Amino acid sequence: MRQSKLFSRISKTPPREEISRNAKFLVQGRFIDKLMAGVYTYLPLGLRVIKRIEQIIREEMNAIGGQEIYMPALHPLENYIITKRDKIDVLFHLESASGKKLVLGQSHEEIIVPLVKKHISSYKDLPLYLYQIQVKFRNELRAKSGILRGREFAMKDLYSFHKDENDFEKYYQSVQAAYHNIFRRVGLGDLTYLTYASGGTFSKYSHEFQTITPAGEDNIFLCEKCKIAVNKEMIEAVEHRCPQCENDDLKLKKAIEVGNIFPLKTKFSDAFDLKYIDQAGQKKPIVMGCYGIGLGRVMGTVVEINSDQKGIIWPKAIAPYEVHLILLDKQPKIKEIAEKAYNSLQKQGVQVIYDDRLESAGVKLNDADLIGIPIRLIISEKTKDKIELKFRNSQQPLLLSQDKVMETITEYYQS
Amino acid sequence: MRQSKLFSRISKTPPREEISRNAKFLVQGRFIDKLMAGVYTYLPLGLRVIKRIEQIIREEMNAIGGQEIYMPALHPLENYIITKRDKIDVLFHLESASGKKLVLGQSHEEIIVPLVKKHISSYKDLPLYLYQIQVKFRNELRAKSGILRGREFAMKDLYSFHKDENDFEKYYQSVQAAYHNIFRRVGLGDLTYLTYASGGTFSKYSHEFQTITPAGEDNIFLCEKCKIAVNKEMIEAVEHRCPQCENDDLKLKKAIEVGNIFPLKTKFSDAFDLKYIDQAGQKKPIVMGCYGIGLGRVMGTVVEINSDQKGIIWPKAIAPYEVHLILLDKQPKIKEIAEKAYNSLQKQGVQVIYDDRLESAGVKLNDADLIGIPIRLIISEKTKDKIELKFRNSQQPLLLSQDKVMETITEYYQS
Repeated sequence: MRQSKLFSRISKTPPREEISRNAKFLVQGRFIDKLMAGVYTYLPLGLRVIKRIEQIIREEMNAIGGQEIYMPALHPLENYIITKRDKIDVLFHLESASGKKLVLGQSHEEIIVPLVKKHISSYKDLPLYLYQIQVKFRNELRAKSGILRGREFAMKDLYSFHKDENDFEKYYQSVQAAYHNIFRRVGLGDLTYLTYASGGTFSKYSHEFQTITPAGEDNIFLCEKCKIAVNKEMIEAVEHRCPQCENDDLKLKKAIEVGNIFPLKTKFSDAFDLKYIDQAGQKKPIVMGCYGIGLGRVMGTVVEINSDQKGIIWPKAIAPYEVHLILLDKQPKIKEIAEKAYNSLQKQGVQVIYDDRLESAGVKLNDADLIGIPIRLIISEKTKDKIELKFRNSQQPLLLSQDKVMETITEYYQS
Repeated sequence: MRQSKLFSRISKTPPREEISRNAKFLVQGRFIDKLMAGVYTYLPLGLRVIKRIEQIIREEMNAIGGQEIYMPALHPLENYIITKRDKIDVLFHLESASGKKLVLGQSHEEIIVPLVKKHISSYKDLPLYLYQIQVKFRNELRAKSGILRGREFAMKDLYSFHKDENDFEKYYQSVQAAYHNIFRRVGLGDLTYLTYASGGTFSKYSHEFQTITPAGEDNIFLCEKCKIAVNKEMIEAVEHRCPQCENDDLKLKKAIEVGNIFPLKTKFSDAFDLKYIDQAGQKKPIVMGCYGIGLGRVMGTVVEINSDQKGIIWPKAIAPYEVHLILLDKQPKIKEIAEKAYNSLQKQGVQVIYDDRLESAGVKLNDADLIGIPIRLIISEKTKDKIELKFRNSQQPLLLSQDKVMETITEYYQS
């Protein structure tokens, strides 16, 4: 991609109305654009990041047997009357032309349970794992922290259906492992902890995945021995001890909830009378779990964690491009070298953004730091027949031959 | 994918409430599930088809310089007051918790024009081509024809921004070519015609892409010489003659509108005062075009066109799987052959769905015809060490060695 053509030009100043670090960098770097509070457009750079996060999540969901579907956002209100969730604050209400009362999906239990009920009946159909990557709408009174808490946001939601609690428990463990994989792959692994949280009215616990950062809105107590945590809301219930090792030396930390997994037991199955016939011909209730990850929230959290005062430092697995090639000279012969390098990188399958703009060196280097592509290549009069390569997360530029540059890129992205 | 695990089991009977051929087959074959009129869930098989259509569209949009973005569905009503579209019937109205009046996006001119205005200003920023693949909401009084006219549906919408009419015209031609590529690639090429349609209040013409089928709701007059058509609504305006060759021997046909391209001139630019500064420092209005394709509508139209009385015949470029492997025997030694073939096909990178269910041969063969995977492989006691291969669009089964089967599959999908 030629940066001269990229929509849109990177801003020279951070947006005034955004307070959170993630929104400042993401808006200034033209990853996202704010339409109104909690409602953002994903611009080309931002959408590339989201698509990469989406693909990592999809791979990990498929690996644990998830089947991908896509449910609508328009829901009949009547389904929420059945589950007694028709009065919850975050529902957007609307009406069809024929007068039917509708809401926008803030989650999909009310849709997936009747769907599954229509399609399955026997123990042979279980277990069943269905997920989607789809848009949720929540009518938050105060949307805040950039894309961390939106009114409209993409979410992966997985629902599992089981013949009994034992079967559910086994799968719940697999999802925990898959979630750890996802957060490791997107670059949040070291700071993300399985966290005991409230189970609401119908389950003792649920679990969150909390990423430690001063920007977090949640407070968690961390057990450094077990690498797990307890949400503050639950700390009394566990008597200020780690639920696994009983250690009482827990560390209070600020954190962002990047995912949650929830035993639903038979709450929604009972509401819609979702049952199966077991081998003995008996009707039994189906045990459920649900498992969410907000894609924008993951992206925002990655920026909170992986950034310095100059801008974002994208983890390589979700960077919008692999390489940022920058031409720092206006002479035709230097430009020719850069154009050749751009074509050559593309031919070798490298995802490259090429700063061919007529901007000053200062602007170009600041922009590169802001948008945070992992590898920066500079071609200028000074580099002669070589290329300067610098990793975004290092201060040390390397002056390398073109072949060595390609070798270094390949090595970095294959490791 | 093992069919025994696939969500969900194919129905033995077509749905009673669906009238259109596409909805009958798609619902019975478990590609889609109806939540309410005009609102469908995409089940695993259907979502795979949609994703393939999406990817073809994306490739063709990128090939003509399109940059992909993703705009939200929640829109401020105030933007529609500016364009005087706040009273149009199909808008869903809702309100935020803080009392802000919102609508759901039925199209995105009201969002993209202010977005572009915020980000560009100079002739150097033009032309600009932005597209998204996103969900639209239209509060249709009567949703009908399965997924052909929905209340919620995925759409690709491209918007182009130009410094003058000439530049717009050139790009409009490129989009026409890209659209022909898309419809050819998804299997609608032979029956899809560029069609002159009304330009509304602000343009002489727009163009539709109309696919000829008795299931169509539109009437078009076809010029077989030029391979173009005129929508019935425009036939008086062109005096019953082909606008290109003046031929007056036009054939009346039923057709489905699978895409449209529209010169917007400066209608929306004027509304939001979207201008650019030209080389002489003068402010000039930006000329726009918009270009839509409904993904579900393409899928539904493909089914209308590519089906027989037994079911769907997917074009190879958008089939949910490449090969349908069917085991027609319960003996362990035959099952072992089938399992080996399944593993071997997967290892060779073939997208295969394997019917390992304990169903009768009749059910399995009927289901295979219904879901319409292009290549069917049968392993049974009769096939011995060979495999029976049949194309869905042919009556002739072939008895082939395993090597020859792989060769035939490769040849078919590479041609």
